[in-house]
Amino acid sequence: MKKLKMAMIGGGVGAFIGKIHREAVRMDGGVEVVAGMFNRDPSQNAEIAERIGVTPDRTYPTWQALVAGEAALADRADFIAVCTPNHLHYPIAKASLEAGFHVMCEKPMTLTVEEANEIADLVKRTKRVFGLMHTYTGYPMVKLARDLVKRGDLGKICKVTVEYCQGSFRKMDFSVPLDKRNKWKMDPKCSGKSCCMGDIGIHAANLVEFVTGLEIRQVLADLSSFVAPKGLDDDGNVLLRLSGGAKGVLTASKIATGEENGLRLRVYGDKKGLVWMQEDPNVLRLRAQREPEQTWKRANPYVAEVSEASMRASRPPAGHPEGYIEGFANHYLNFCDAIRAVDAGKRPTPSMLDFPNARDGVRGLRFIDAVVASSKAGGVWTRL
Amino acid sequence: MKKLKMAMIGGGVGAFIGKIHREAVRMDGGVEVVAGMFNRDPSQNAEIAERIGVTPDRTYPTWQALVAGEAALADRADFIAVCTPNHLHYPIAKASLEAGFHVMCEKPMTLTVEEANEIADLVKRTKRVFGLMHTYTGYPMVKLARDLVKRGDLGKICKVTVEYCQGSFRKMDFSVPLDKRNKWKMDPKCSGKSCCMGDIGIHAANLVEFVTGLEIRQVLADLSSFVAPKGLDDDGNVLLRLSGGAKGVLTASKIATGEENGLRLRVYGDKKGLVWMQEDPNVLRLRAQREPEQTWKRANPYVAEVSEASMRASRPPAGHPEGYIEGFANHYLNFCDAIRAVDAGKRPTPSMLDFPNARDGVRGLRFIDAVVASSKAGGVWTRL
Amino acid sequence: MKKLKMAMIGGGVGAFIGKIHREAVRMDGGVEVVAGMFNRDPSQNAEIAERIGVTPDRTYPTWQALVAGEAALADRADFIAVCTPNHLHYPIAKASLEAGFHVMCEKPMTLTVEEANEIADLVKRTKRVFGLMHTYTGYPMVKLARDLVKRGDLGKICKVTVEYCQGSFRKMDFSVPLDKRNKWKMDPKCSGKSCCMGDIGIHAANLVEFVTGLEIRQVLADLSSFVAPKGLDDDGNVLLRLSGGAKGVLTASKIATGEENGLRLRVYGDKKGLVWMQEDPNVLRLRAQREPEQTWKRANPYVAEVSEASMRASRPPAGHPEGYIEGFANHYLNFCDAIRAVDAGKRPTPSMLDFPNARDGVRGLRFIDAVVASSKAGGVWTRL
Amino acid sequence: MKKLKMAMIGGGVGAFIGKIHREAVRMDGGVEVVAGMFNRDPSQNAEIAERIGVTPDRTYPTWQALVAGEAALADRADFIAVCTPNHLHYPIAKASLEAGFHVMCEKPMTLTVEEANEIADLVKRTKRVFGLMHTYTGYPMVKLARDLVKRGDLGKICKVTVEYCQGSFRKMDFSVPLDKRNKWKMDPKCSGKSCCMGDIGIHAANLVEFVTGLEIRQVLADLSSFVAPKGLDDDGNVLLRLSGGAKGVLTASKIATGEENGLRLRVYGDKKGLVWMQEDPNVLRLRAQREPEQTWKRANPYVAEVSEASMRASRPPAGHPEGYIEGFANHYLNFCDAIRAVDAGKRPTPSMLDFPNARDGVRGLRFIDAVVASSKAGGVWTRL
Repeated sequence: MKKLKMAMIGGGVGAFIGKIHREAVRMDGGVEVVAGMFNRDPSQNAEIAERIGVTPDRTYPTWQALVAGEAALADRADFIAVCTPNHLHYPIAKASLEAGFHVMCEKPMTLTVEEANEIADLVKRTKRVFGLMHTYTGYPMVKLARDLVKRGDLGKICKVTVEYCQGSFRKMDFSVPLDKRNKWKMDPKCSGKSCCMGDIGIHAANLVEFVTGLEIRQVLADLSSFVAPKGLDDDGNVLLRLSGGAKGVLTASKIATGEENGLRLRVYGDKKGLVWMQEDPNVLRLRAQREPEQTWKRANPYVAEVSEASMRASRPPAGHPEGYIEGFANHYLNFCDAIRAVDAGKRPTPSMLDFPNARDGVRGLRFIDAVVASSKAGGVWTRL
Repeated sequence: MKKLKMAMIGGGVGAFIGKIHREAVRMDGGVEVVAGMFNRDPSQNAEIAERIGVTPDRTYPTWQALVAGEAALADRADFIAVCTPNHLHYPIAKASLEAGFHVMCEKPMTLTVEEANEIADLVKRTKRVFGLMHTYTGYPMVKLARDLVKRGDLGKICKVTVEYCQGSFRKMDFSVPLDKRNKWKMDPKCSGKSCCMGDIGIHAANLVEFVTGLEIRQVLADLSSFVAPKGLDDDGNVLLRLSGGAKGVLTASKIATGEENGLRLRVYGDKKGLVWMQEDPNVLRLRAQREPEQTWKRANPYVAEVSEASMRASRPPAGHPEGYIEGFANHYLNFCDAIRAVDAGKRPTPSMLDFPNARDGVRGLRFIDAVVASSKAGGVWTRL
Repeated sequence: MKKLKMAMIGGGVGAFIGKIHREAVRMDGGVEVVAGMFNRDPSQNAEIAERIGVTPDRTYPTWQALVAGEAALADRADFIAVCTPNHLHYPIAKASLEAGFHVMCEKPMTLTVEEANEIADLVKRTKRVFGLMHTYTGYPMVKLARDLVKRGDLGKICKVTVEYCQGSFRKMDFSVPLDKRNKWKMDPKCSGKSCCMGDIGIHAANLVEFVTGLEIRQVLADLSSFVAPKGLDDDGNVLLRLSGGAKGVLTASKIATGEENGLRLRVYGDKKGLVWMQEDPNVLRLRAQREPEQTWKRANPYVAEVSEASMRASRPPAGHPEGYIEGFANHYLNFCDAIRAVDAGKRPTPSMLDFPNARDGVRGLRFIDAVVASSKAGGVWTRL
Repeated sequence: MKKLKMAMIGGGVGAFIGKIHREAVRMDGGVEVVAGMFNRDPSQNAEIAERIGVTPDRTYPTWQALVAGEAALADRADFIAVCTPNHLHYPIAKASLEAGFHVMCEKPMTLTVEEANEIADLVKRTKRVFGLMHTYTGYPMVKLARDLVKRGDLGKICKVTVEYCQGSFRKMDFSVPLDKRNKWKMDPKCSGKSCCMGDIGIHAANLVEFVTGLEIRQVLADLSSFVAPKGLDDDGNVLLRLSGGAKGVLTASKIATGEENGLRLRVYGDKKGLVWMQEDPNVLRLRAQREPEQTWKRANPYVAEVSEASMRASRPPAGHPEGYIEGFANHYLNFCDAIRAVDAGKRPTPSMLDFPNARDGVRGLRFIDAVVASSKAGGVWTRL
């Protein structure tokens, strides 16, 4: 198996998500980080490079330099991972694709729907592999959930409730300047027009569409700003209408005191209902009206009967918990297999393509646009 | 302690809630059922009477006969429990109050806001004790939740999520005539303008107001009819705006496949958040941002420090679970103490008055009115 | 249905279990407390009598007076409930049976195996109905567990782990005189030769035999006295060997800091395993090796298919929790039906006889004897 | 940070634990697998080597060849990971240490106490860093548990219950030849004198000593063979006596139908009690008698106040679960830091040495010896 070469933009000193990308990408041994532009500060940039074994000649001072520099090398990186603040996703993804790199990009894909459409078109035109890091669909039991729905076990989907509750803003003191990691998130020019919905509501929306196979068609939103500066939303409640007639509720919050990373999904079909919770990710609960509730557990033979994708995303045997980093790693596994196929001139199989992509990116931006518009209008049904 | 005499209307053969009323009322030994009109069918009426020890002379063929008959007795019933289908709550409550009886009434109090206001006025005028059976506020840990909020432990309340999910309609076959117990629930003339919201959404709304001490000021609802006949709502998602600036989501469903009686409340203040779930009623979870999550358990000394009401509502010691019937019984305990006080010419203490009353009844009907109106208008913010 | 008349001995001011007996016995409406000897202190005795509606003429100063007095009445009590400290169980039960009363007795049945055998013989001879209040087998899901084992769902039982952990002694100050409720429990003349095993270990042993249908044949015990006075056991760990070759562990403790009433049972057969926990009593978990874990919930149709006894022990519908008092009440329900049958000259059906009896009482005393002997001998296998 | 070179023995095609070692060791980027002897079958050996990027010249046909070959290289491996069947641990560890390699060894360290003592002596003499893969003490919340006990939060430890329940043997058909992965585990010459206790009971014992800081001084065991061939134990119940007067129970099983990897620990001190469960590893429950139960969650500031080791073992922020592979990785992190220190001629800090070592290996073998001897003698207290 060919080891792929990765270049990373962002993920420097103090960054949370870039470090996770590296831990995840290393775990399965198929990728090597060979180049990077981690921090704008030169000494921090060098520090990270050294720590993770990137040589100085491939440690670049700007993302533009990285794209250009790598493009010029014979031994160039196979793909570029974009772990920067949101507003840089678009220009970097664009430049990288145009320079012929495959791209793994943090969410949201861009700041606007227009940019998102442009990236999606560019991916098609350049025939590059493009991944979007909606981590949570990388969990084995989320893949199982999707495959149970697909197989028809839940019947026709009628109702969805999804929430993504955090209390993180309760720990922050907005009366003093924020640290670097949080500052850009409070600046719409960097983070986009929504704070809470753009950061975590978008994951909840993505999870709903992934598991149900349905599209969120209309939203009616009530966004709030309890503590965030400049009227940025730090909480929101959204009514959902999905394709096929299903309805639902999405709630996301940064001010839900005491919550850590409470992403929870329930899907009710006319035959069965399911429950998945990110903080207890190794199980999936399945309920019918006249049967005992079932707790499906990761990596069991009965999972294998339904979902090859779930098993492929499982490392240790049943009973040995997996977590967040493994969810990340699962997306990278498929993403890299797809790159290997494309680079070998082959068509990636559907199972290789089981990771979030530019289409999810467009959906996400349309979701943000719609909830912000709906809420601004005082709460009106708004199409995605 | 004077044993009170209760007359019961409804609660006959095949009825669920009337039996619970009797089990609850008996448990603490302060009430005796002395009269009843249980079923319209004379033989069923007699059967229940005999089973529970009501003598034939006080087994009445109609509710009108009961009210009149008991009113004429020297040894007349102290209060009347109304456990009939919804449309009879109003006339029976009215007649009972006017005849000088105290009343314990099933929810919803009436079919319309107008009727509800009328009952509330009548209660004031007649100075009778009026209880409304919103069972769930009778649970000890719900009383604790309220008292924690009241004491300020949660800080300023910002967000509420409440749900009441059942899958009961998934077990029913709507293509054939329904059994007696369900038939009237599908007839708006008997059950009121809302099915799901009127039956269970109303409990969720009551629970929110009880625990937070806030009023639901505006709702924006999306009601659905997935399987119920005649376009009756069997599911609904509602955005909430509460007094004091808090926001929230309420979701209720009869088609949430696999759910049994999933009433769950979360309240987030700016200091702490709490979680209570009816199916695990003996604990209350309390969470802050920089402290371990706390699980408060029923009948402990640390509960007593916060909530005398919670302790008063606890029978066996900590670790010995209590349930639904005990929740009922707790309302009856306070209700009966209030009757004893009033009948002795005293003013009931606040702790005696800790049961749902006619004001809750008015609030409930206004909630139903508002959600139905909001949804019919296609989803607009509607004041209660 | 004939209302039975109950006389109660014990259960006075400050007593915990007597009050539970009354709450339980009232709930289903089939029993009336007509006589009592509640406290030795006359004023407390009168106080309880008045509170619960027992007339002064049937409020007796001693248990002997009660047995004699009631025996002499035409309208005499149907059965006597014995809720006294342990050492009085034997003489009262004996006298009551000899006077022709049916008896419901708190556990342990007596202080010694010899006494226990005598009561068991007397029950046979007098043909009276004798119930022993091992509460926990009254829970609906425990009855289901037994019936699943009986039906063969678990296959051949191989292993059992049972624990009954409390931390109650951690709250007590043994350096000062204990209150009345705890004092006799620390006096072997009143409570018997074992404190922890006699009080709660005996429930764990009873639960094992009830659910598995097997007998504990041999024990090997290590009892400890961490804080209890006079070397009384406040903790114990016991190896079990059961009939049919199954093995197990039983652990009971009064010094398990932070535990409330942690009675938990696991049974492993060669086909399935089950888990039941008293603090979460409305569910039963069932696990097989190649299937999703199942959570069986009280009062569902799939429960009814296996266990008529479980359904008979269920009051409100699924999703509405029941608790400890209801467990008590279930034993009384069957016990009273058996009395009605016997008094009508009929043979009670097996379902009426589904409550703990004198045989369980003998087994319990043999268990206490064996664990104390085993531990005293330094840990040797000892037959029951 | 210097990247360490690892040579691996074992962990070939079809092996479970070797793959986990590689995933774990890669995650944090500080180790590179440079050499290996994975399978005795040459083609499988080559297959794994190629898959993980080990060059043919450093893919060895035997472990002896690997030790000798690497020892002869200038660029030799820094340490050797021993992931073979049990009987090879001793000779490989011995040869590796003697050849100057640091060693990470799977448990049990050897087959006998004598061999274990020899390895422990050799580690001292050679001054090599020796790690033993008792994975479970690598979990962050287990480190927190230890540090809470050490800080005195639990007070004096009185009681311990630990269990390690699996149902894996229920899936196996012992009437046909076993597959390679299981075959050696049923051969005492390869796996040692105990099957269940040697494989998993040993983890439970290690966990107890790690968290409590106490030594298991005496055991009294009842081992069983329900389905395993040749009378090998597949289940066992053990009474424990620990230093300082604490007592406990340890139960381990391979025939606990429906269990996956049920390692669960409870420790009761005279102030508090704690609960940790491997299948829910990101939380630690802490209970006192007069306080709400606390759920401590990974990577929070209140954890940091108690346990620097727990934080160091945490990668993603609170609310983002970690699992089994991360537990492995944590041991490797410290082990590698210790190697770097030793190789730089420095003394490793205590925090670097926070991984299981040869002393744990000796304790483990003594535990196995004692439980087997105790059970064979029919259940007698046996010193470790």
